[in-house]
Amino acid sequence: MTEPFVIVGGDAAGMSAASKAKREDPDRDVIVFEKGEWVSYAACGMPYYVKGTVENLEDLVAMTPEEFREEREVDLRMGHEVVEVNPRQTVVTVEANGDRFDQPYGDLLLATGARAIEPPFDGIDLDGVFTLRSMDEAEGIKDYVTAAEPETAAIVGGGYVGVEMAEALVERDVDVSIFEMLPHILQPFGEETANIVGDHLQERGVDLYRETAVEGFAGSETVQSVELADEGSVPADLVIVGVGVRPNVELAEEAGIEVGPTGAVATDEYGRTNVADVYAAGDCAEATNAVTGEPDYVPLALTANRAGRAIGSTVSSDPTPVGETAGTAIVKAFDLGAARTGITDPEEARESGFDPVSVTIEAPTRPHYYPGGTPLTVTLMADRESGRVLGASLVGRKGTKRIDTVVPAVTTGLTVSELQNLDLAYAPPFSPVWDPILTAAKVLGGKLDR
Amino acid sequence: MTEPFVIVGGDAAGMSAASKAKREDPDRDVIVFEKGEWVSYAACGMPYYVKGTVENLEDLVAMTPEEFREEREVDLRMGHEVVEVNPRQTVVTVEANGDRFDQPYGDLLLATGARAIEPPFDGIDLDGVFTLRSMDEAEGIKDYVTAAEPETAAIVGGGYVGVEMAEALVERDVDVSIFEMLPHILQPFGEETANIVGDHLQERGVDLYRETAVEGFAGSETVQSVELADEGSVPADLVIVGVGVRPNVELAEEAGIEVGPTGAVATDEYGRTNVADVYAAGDCAEATNAVTGEPDYVPLALTANRAGRAIGSTVSSDPTPVGETAGTAIVKAFDLGAARTGITDPEEARESGFDPVSVTIEAPTRPHYYPGGTPLTVTLMADRESGRVLGASLVGRKGTKRIDTVVPAVTTGLTVSELQNLDLAYAPPFSPVWDPILTAAKVLGGKLDR
Repeated sequence: MTEPFVIVGGDAAGMSAASKAKREDPDRDVIVFEKGEWVSYAACGMPYYVKGTVENLEDLVAMTPEEFREEREVDLRMGHEVVEVNPRQTVVTVEANGDRFDQPYGDLLLATGARAIEPPFDGIDLDGVFTLRSMDEAEGIKDYVTAAEPETAAIVGGGYVGVEMAEALVERDVDVSIFEMLPHILQPFGEETANIVGDHLQERGVDLYRETAVEGFAGSETVQSVELADEGSVPADLVIVGVGVRPNVELAEEAGIEVGPTGAVATDEYGRTNVADVYAAGDCAEATNAVTGEPDYVPLALTANRAGRAIGSTVSSDPTPVGETAGTAIVKAFDLGAARTGITDPEEARESGFDPVSVTIEAPTRPHYYPGGTPLTVTLMADRESGRVLGASLVGRKGTKRIDTVVPAVTTGLTVSELQNLDLAYAPPFSPVWDPILTAAKVLGGKLDR
Repeated sequence: MTEPFVIVGGDAAGMSAASKAKREDPDRDVIVFEKGEWVSYAACGMPYYVKGTVENLEDLVAMTPEEFREEREVDLRMGHEVVEVNPRQTVVTVEANGDRFDQPYGDLLLATGARAIEPPFDGIDLDGVFTLRSMDEAEGIKDYVTAAEPETAAIVGGGYVGVEMAEALVERDVDVSIFEMLPHILQPFGEETANIVGDHLQERGVDLYRETAVEGFAGSETVQSVELADEGSVPADLVIVGVGVRPNVELAEEAGIEVGPTGAVATDEYGRTNVADVYAAGDCAEATNAVTGEPDYVPLALTANRAGRAIGSTVSSDPTPVGETAGTAIVKAFDLGAARTGITDPEEARESGFDPVSVTIEAPTRPHYYPGGTPLTVTLMADRESGRVLGASLVGRKGTKRIDTVVPAVTTGLTVSELQNLDLAYAPPFSPVWDPILTAAKVLGGKLDR
């Protein structure tokens, strides 16, 4: 008899793998150990729970533990923590309810996720200081906002979470400040896009501190202010620390499983680690960058779902690549959307051996004569020598999902002139004849010709 | 001295070529002969002029003749008809104001466009019977609606123009019937999409006659009814005949320029005809189908603009491919959008040597917990043997511009599993984790595996 497929971690990657494996091979046991009390939840929806758009925390759950057990026949064990992986004996050691036992595996998936980075700020343990990574933290923030009615909030870190939480808290009538160490927020989106978003945040009343280092937080029991390195202190009844995440790789490292250059578990195109029959996926694992072919760490939901699903097939005798990442992301900031894919940072492009050339254009989402069009700002980057499209960033009130048109281009290595010649959809209610993506390609093509 | 670049026809293809050629090589003369009184107008906007969304016909003009002359230094001659092309002497013969003269050319672009097909219907010359191809016809229809206040309108042909005009006329308080000979409207969109649009048209009060042949129109002077082959007559105070267009190839044929299997002027990847220094672009010319590699006739605006622009570069010593067509199209029908690209008809796929497999799925445009999502119906077709994506069709209230994600896939020959592994943009306000396109690819992938 085949030993079971054992999965450590019951969120996107783990539960996708479990479901797919059971569907492909219903006779094989699939056991998921989840140390917490939530499975398969949409972490990306948590800011909208705090905002109030999503009423109940349970709404963010795609499937309940009962549904996984009953409908999908997955042996899901909540409150079970895997404390050791022993590849030589092909067992994992599990702790639950004060007990400890060994579980043999045939295939093992590490889907241990990531945790919020907590810099060594003074006062980080004060009441009212939160990170936003788990469902419990989301609930904690919402309850705190409701109970303590903070007048001011400080968000440390101008990434996705910071921007989304700024919107959420403004909606809850809190005065919000964002503190970003670097010259612009939303690093992966590039300066042009980030500055447009930054201006819009300020228009909507958010105080934006750029190139500003936070030293810590002050208050007695409850936070009252953010202490800055150079600029004194800023009042804050609530603090959200959103400076990124770190992959949970301790279990893997202790078992001798290789961690890659990004700090996440190294994997091949099928999500396999360097140890036989052990896979890794989701926010604990590396992925391959679609543009550079190098290992990359992009802890986003689709990557996790897709890799989990592919590994569920692979362990069921249908080898399926987990797919590469283009680092595609999209974020809402009040009335604006911002999106990015591929490489948009010239430094990063040079490090990967490219000679980056880029343009930023503004074009309407509809023809001039048809009402309802809004400007879309498109930044497009290519390699001078080959003309290959490296990445793009978009920002506007509407139409930012058009980034998806550039995703296959960067993934398959299209040139700017091939991108420009794509036969995109046109009718006045939907687009100008030249979609803004094509306009950017035209202008970039002109620059490459020179 | 180089002889001028001469262009026959001043709409999308012609004026794009003229502008680009002047930009690339300002010293060379560019002469455009336009027999009518309009240049560079957005024909696709005409239904919205009739509807009233666009107030003035002039709003549809991207650039006026004066702007082309003064800002772009194009020698644009209105009311000039080219009546003969003589490739041996490299001259065209032009008639204007009762005169006739020869104009030598160095390069020649035929951008003679297309005309509406007028089947030999009885009574097609009655007052109140229109086709919609030219700006004058658009004005004629709008004036007629305003002056004659028709209570009923019949639209013959359920293509783009038919569907858009149905919406326009319902908006003008006219009772509309559409007569389509085939089993469903919007042929290139496939049955699944077309039927959803058809149901929606009926919900909005349009009478839809499918598999219904029109014999002609009856009335004295002014049209009063549509006469059907089998079903008697239907009252109609206004008739729009929208059964397609036919390329204007007479000038080319008389000059010995080759017409291809589609009936349009045959061209190569640079838009060259079989005759030296003579190019063709826009609605009079063939394009290469991106999926089949075969000649295709897709008289749409982007193809025309793109080919014109490319030829403007090519004649200025920068050889630029005109690009292939994926037959991408998008149409608004009241509250719905419908879009298509590539091959969506199983018959057509088989004729091109493919073994088509397709799925139709319905998926929301946003996650279940985030408000404002609407269902999007995606039909995706692939070749069984190779897994290559052949085409797609979408229909829904929102999100139909996502067809553009499939365009690079069909153009570059991605397989279904490559499409499924694209790293598309996800955040709750914009998309579920699995974009509907990815969901369709997942389901189609499962079907291909069996």
